[in-house]
Amino acid sequence: VESEIRRVCVLFLDIRGFTTFSEKRTPPEVVNHLNQVFDFMIQIINDNGGIVNKFLGDGFMALFGAPLSYQGQDSANAVRAALAIRVALLAANARGDIAETHIGIGIHVGDALVGNVGSASRKEYSIIGDVVNLASRVESLNKQFHSEILITRAVREELPEEFEKIAKPLGPVSVKGREEQVQIFKLA
Amino acid sequence: VESEIRRVCVLFLDIRGFTTFSEKRTPPEVVNHLNQVFDFMIQIINDNGGIVNKFLGDGFMALFGAPLSYQGQDSANAVRAALAIRVALLAANARGDIAETHIGIGIHVGDALVGNVGSASRKEYSIIGDVVNLASRVESLNKQFHSEILITRAVREELPEEFEKIAKPLGPVSVKGREEQVQIFKLA
Repeated sequence: VESEIRRVCVLFLDIRGFTTFSEKRTPPEVVNHLNQVFDFMIQIINDNGGIVNKFLGDGFMALFGAPLSYQGQDSANAVRAALAIRVALLAANARGDIAETHIGIGIHVGDALVGNVGSASRKEYSIIGDVVNLASRVESLNKQFHSEILITRAVREELPEEFEKIAKPLGPVSVKGREEQVQIFKLA
Repeated sequence: VESEIRRVCVLFLDIRGFTTFSEKRTPPEVVNHLNQVFDFMIQIINDNGGIVNKFLGDGFMALFGAPLSYQGQDSANAVRAALAIRVALLAANARGDIAETHIGIGIHVGDALVGNVGSASRKEYSIIGDVVNLASRVESLNKQFHSEILITRAVREELPEEFEKIAKPLGPVSVKGREEQVQIFKLA
């Protein structure tokens, strides 16, 4: 893998209330549940041209635009994946296939450094840059807004018209570690 | 790997000011630098009985106590690794072996769920629980305290006497997402 700057759309997904969920179950039950829901979510990420780059306990980070890019489609693909995950989760909850599960998703797009990072004996495809931190912080805003999917203005600007009517502006939001406020949109 | 609750000491390491560092260099220079410093840091983690579980862009998360535990020694091993990394980094900076680099380390210990989590086709050894979030937040407090290595009271209580005199209390600190304040100690 070449070290380079790429435009990458970053999607963070987190399972809500997972600590409370875990308290009432045995460790194998908790891990089986996670694997059950991650399995179809990751499939949806892949089906929409993304990859899960990192598992993060009760969540994951997915990339659209790196290492492969569908030129000009990466942000739209990330949003399509997020919407499809929400629909699939609603259906699984309604059918009682899984213990009731709720999620938060945050999506941001920007330039980032990518490359293989690690030790001499073990390197991983990594993405480094502020776009990652902001995507993670946008995800964490879901709690405050009682929302499930939040995107930044940068993502919205790369979306086709069909998505415009479902992206509701929540106004500028202060985010830790940034002077400028961030324009956030909730996907209805 | 069995899904279980284990006592795990979690160490987060982050390279300070990496965005600024990156702005003045080409992508290959940045990635080469990261690999150069991570290489000796990861060696030190391993030498002290830990493993790097996850690379996080310009940082990593290491575990002591999972999947292997040196019963009763995991917190002390994490602290030894942190101190050794600081010494090795100071030496590398002084010799001019590397572009001058500064780090922040946060360490916390507690019970966490461990297991293999992911999709049907790709699972990773994962640690899930509040201990991870708090270790990460303690790491981020280094900026505010102009410190390099911060540990929680839970870690300090598991350390042998030799470390007591170098752990300076910084008083109780408010941490996002927690009602109770957290007792933090700076390693001198």
